[in-house]
Amino acid sequence: MSIKNAISPTRKENYPQWYQQVISAADLAETSPVRGCMVIKPWGYAIWELIQQDLDKRIKETGHVNAYFPLLIPLSFLEKEAQHVEGFAKECAVVTHHRLKEENGKLVPDGKLEEPFVIRPTSETLIGEMYSKWVQSYRDLPIMINQWANVMRWEMRTRLFLRTSEFLWQEGHTAHASQQEALDETLSMLQVYHDFAKDFLAIPVIMGRKPITERFPGAEDTYTIEALMQDGKALQAGTSHFMGQNFAKASNINFLTQDGERAFAWTTSWGVTTRLIGALIMSHSDDDGLVLPPTVAPYHIVILPIFRNEEEQQEVKAYCEELKKQLSNELFAHQKLRVHIDKRDLRGGEKNWQWVKKGIPLRIEIGPRDIAQNKLVIMRRDKSVTEKISMEFSLLIKEASKLLHEIQLALLNKMEKHYADHQKNITSLAEFEEFFRQDDDERVYAPGFARCFVADTIEIAAILKKYHVTQRCIPLAELEYGPCIFTGELQSPTMLLARSY
Amino acid sequence: MSIKNAISPTRKENYPQWYQQVISAADLAETSPVRGCMVIKPWGYAIWELIQQDLDKRIKETGHVNAYFPLLIPLSFLEKEAQHVEGFAKECAVVTHHRLKEENGKLVPDGKLEEPFVIRPTSETLIGEMYSKWVQSYRDLPIMINQWANVMRWEMRTRLFLRTSEFLWQEGHTAHASQQEALDETLSMLQVYHDFAKDFLAIPVIMGRKPITERFPGAEDTYTIEALMQDGKALQAGTSHFMGQNFAKASNINFLTQDGERAFAWTTSWGVTTRLIGALIMSHSDDDGLVLPPTVAPYHIVILPIFRNEEEQQEVKAYCEELKKQLSNELFAHQKLRVHIDKRDLRGGEKNWQWVKKGIPLRIEIGPRDIAQNKLVIMRRDKSVTEKISMEFSLLIKEASKLLHEIQLALLNKMEKHYADHQKNITSLAEFEEFFRQDDDERVYAPGFARCFVADTIEIAAILKKYHVTQRCIPLAELEYGPCIFTGELQSPTMLLARSY
Repeated sequence: MSIKNAISPTRKENYPQWYQQVISAADLAETSPVRGCMVIKPWGYAIWELIQQDLDKRIKETGHVNAYFPLLIPLSFLEKEAQHVEGFAKECAVVTHHRLKEENGKLVPDGKLEEPFVIRPTSETLIGEMYSKWVQSYRDLPIMINQWANVMRWEMRTRLFLRTSEFLWQEGHTAHASQQEALDETLSMLQVYHDFAKDFLAIPVIMGRKPITERFPGAEDTYTIEALMQDGKALQAGTSHFMGQNFAKASNINFLTQDGERAFAWTTSWGVTTRLIGALIMSHSDDDGLVLPPTVAPYHIVILPIFRNEEEQQEVKAYCEELKKQLSNELFAHQKLRVHIDKRDLRGGEKNWQWVKKGIPLRIEIGPRDIAQNKLVIMRRDKSVTEKISMEFSLLIKEASKLLHEIQLALLNKMEKHYADHQKNITSLAEFEEFFRQDDDERVYAPGFARCFVADTIEIAAILKKYHVTQRCIPLAELEYGPCIFTGELQSPTMLLARSY
Repeated sequence: MSIKNAISPTRKENYPQWYQQVISAADLAETSPVRGCMVIKPWGYAIWELIQQDLDKRIKETGHVNAYFPLLIPLSFLEKEAQHVEGFAKECAVVTHHRLKEENGKLVPDGKLEEPFVIRPTSETLIGEMYSKWVQSYRDLPIMINQWANVMRWEMRTRLFLRTSEFLWQEGHTAHASQQEALDETLSMLQVYHDFAKDFLAIPVIMGRKPITERFPGAEDTYTIEALMQDGKALQAGTSHFMGQNFAKASNINFLTQDGERAFAWTTSWGVTTRLIGALIMSHSDDDGLVLPPTVAPYHIVILPIFRNEEEQQEVKAYCEELKKQLSNELFAHQKLRVHIDKRDLRGGEKNWQWVKKGIPLRIEIGPRDIAQNKLVIMRRDKSVTEKISMEFSLLIKEASKLLHEIQLALLNKMEKHYADHQKNITSLAEFEEFFRQDDDERVYAPGFARCFVADTIEIAAILKKYHVTQRCIPLAELEYGPCIFTGELQSPTMLLARSY
């Protein structure tokens, strides 16, 4: 007899609904009464805090400092870069008044602003304005600043974490004296994102250059890390933009060079968002709910005391406290183990399932018999829910960190296998059509990544649209050229194609 | 001959301008092109990050968890609590459109919203709406959530950190099953703020209850921590509000009690803001610029290498690196020492003054002669700039943390003496008028705190306004009653009066 899964529907039954149910069962987030904006609940926010801590460290270790810039952007700033404004004008929250008044018993906007503001969809133009004041000479360069902030892009079709009107992110903005330095920065941050995704989130992303149709509005080049979800669809997980001198010219960031000449700076920007939590969910979770890599689990270990009466309760609780105390001195990934004892007055089975659904890497059940036999029952979230390991107290203390490392690695390996199993090198239109034969029905799994020579043109993007396929990127590690499978155009780059989020 | 001070004007010459100059000289923040909104620059933001880290730990240790709620609040939510909307309607940024279009070559708002939103000035009403969904039974209580966020209150007269249209803060929002529990929470968080201000910021604040005229809009009682700046003016540094059932009724947060009856929850909220950085500056800084308590200094120690040629440079730099390495293994306030070597190619004096103005607790100058004699020259920011200590390498490693503790304590003691020297118990109107005889000229120091029996009425607030004096709070530790010095009304509480920010 098979055990019923905790999440219904399962992934195979209906992946998009499964995704919503995993979020709900783990209590990560929910929709709010504000159109398109989500509430990130404590469990989801604790994951975001862990992401922030680790990524912030990497950002600082690569020479950046944090700062904070205003939430509002004057319309006149947005207009400075033509492509930029075109890219964001259709999805801006616009502030037009600065107070409210009562009219016929109803509150209405009052105090009309001379110049309206938009809530930042991104901050290039405002930060560029500040940099233009801060930069006078080559000695003031480079400027390497990051900001953790909320941003808003008015979205019509939203999905928790993946696409929301307001989201949280970090946005790095740097200005350099030379083109080469700015290019190096763009790619160095892409590498930081790649390593972070792989080492911290156990998501083996692919680094690449975006096709021209997918560039950030105003950028000369956009680089991306692309992830492949369990349903075979690609997800853009982070971007790093080389702006050339576009924004420096728009904001007039110019400086006196070492040779005494005036020149425009070269700028970059790069960001990742709360979307990473969506990527995390869709990479590792299963039909019993959230599965968290230990690095990003608010608790590494949850201890579940089991007892039938007052006397047993005292014994078990004391034992659990001692176990927690000793485990909490051990290290995993340079951090002390995060251990929680669930003391709530609930049935053991109910508690256990709650933590399964919340993705805890290790669960330990402890009852009087386990104590008597000095055999603790340990359950790994990456294994079947019925699989249990038995271990003595002292061995567990010694092995806990190793078990967490195993889980971390197992999740990464599983995803790497998933990538290997869902990609194909394609050399003809027929092969392409065979690979993507299924229509874009979101309940049905997509086939994964196709690699083929495809011209990087606007026309190709339009052709692909008919197949519900998008150009994800030109993978940096596999750059070759050949004839486009659609147009025969020679010298077309290797392109990664996929259905996508 | 006296040494010229780094900041001009000095505190005594013009305190408000001195304040702006300290901020500018330390490169903490500056005004932005967005009305009333500031840019928090890297040095200022690093201070905010240290504040966040420590306070966040205290908030979590007292049983709270973090979450994130939407930036926008529907007008209909704001209207739910009559006093609340009245308190905030006059200073709201209002979002009325969700895109932009071009009209006669100019960008204009487009896509008018059916219901406008305000950018959160505070989040009681939105969070209350969520809590009303989350709370069904007494088992769902208490809810104890905090959020770190930006908020916006449209201010006409702004001053960096002290009063800005957008500011950063944390806002805690809790809901409880009983009045007593909510009251306990309100006061327990006030105590957390008090301890944090004293132990972390070296600011000895006074805890008290706000008079009725100063309550948070919609609260039953507002508690405050009040600080006294060096110019004798009071600054509200944090507040904790007991909402009674006002917001629970407005948002319909009701629950099934243990006795099977329906009841409204009791709620609280509490917050501190980037204003704390203003309090920090005005508490400790001097005529040479910022002075930072070591707890909140981005670098505890800055090492300044001094050399005249290539050969000396190599020797000095290697020595500095070794010193940094060894110092960085020492602990201060449970954290590893934050040590920085200033390797920039600038004159030694210029470097030294930059770090003086940035408030670094300990500066160490190291040249070839110091190395030869094994005598390092150490300068404490809390002492005169000409005062130097000489210490051997190994002794410095051993004593560095102790020196930082001494500085931390010295700053706190200095402020405690300042409080003691600038307060007076007052028993008559004549004494009151003598104490506050000076008009409210912001270039002139105010006398400090007056303690006297004052009726807690709207009328009194109006009388005090004529003297440019405000009721700061009814100090919790000194609650007595007597006849009001203005009206003779018996049973008037001990009130703390002061000129204020």
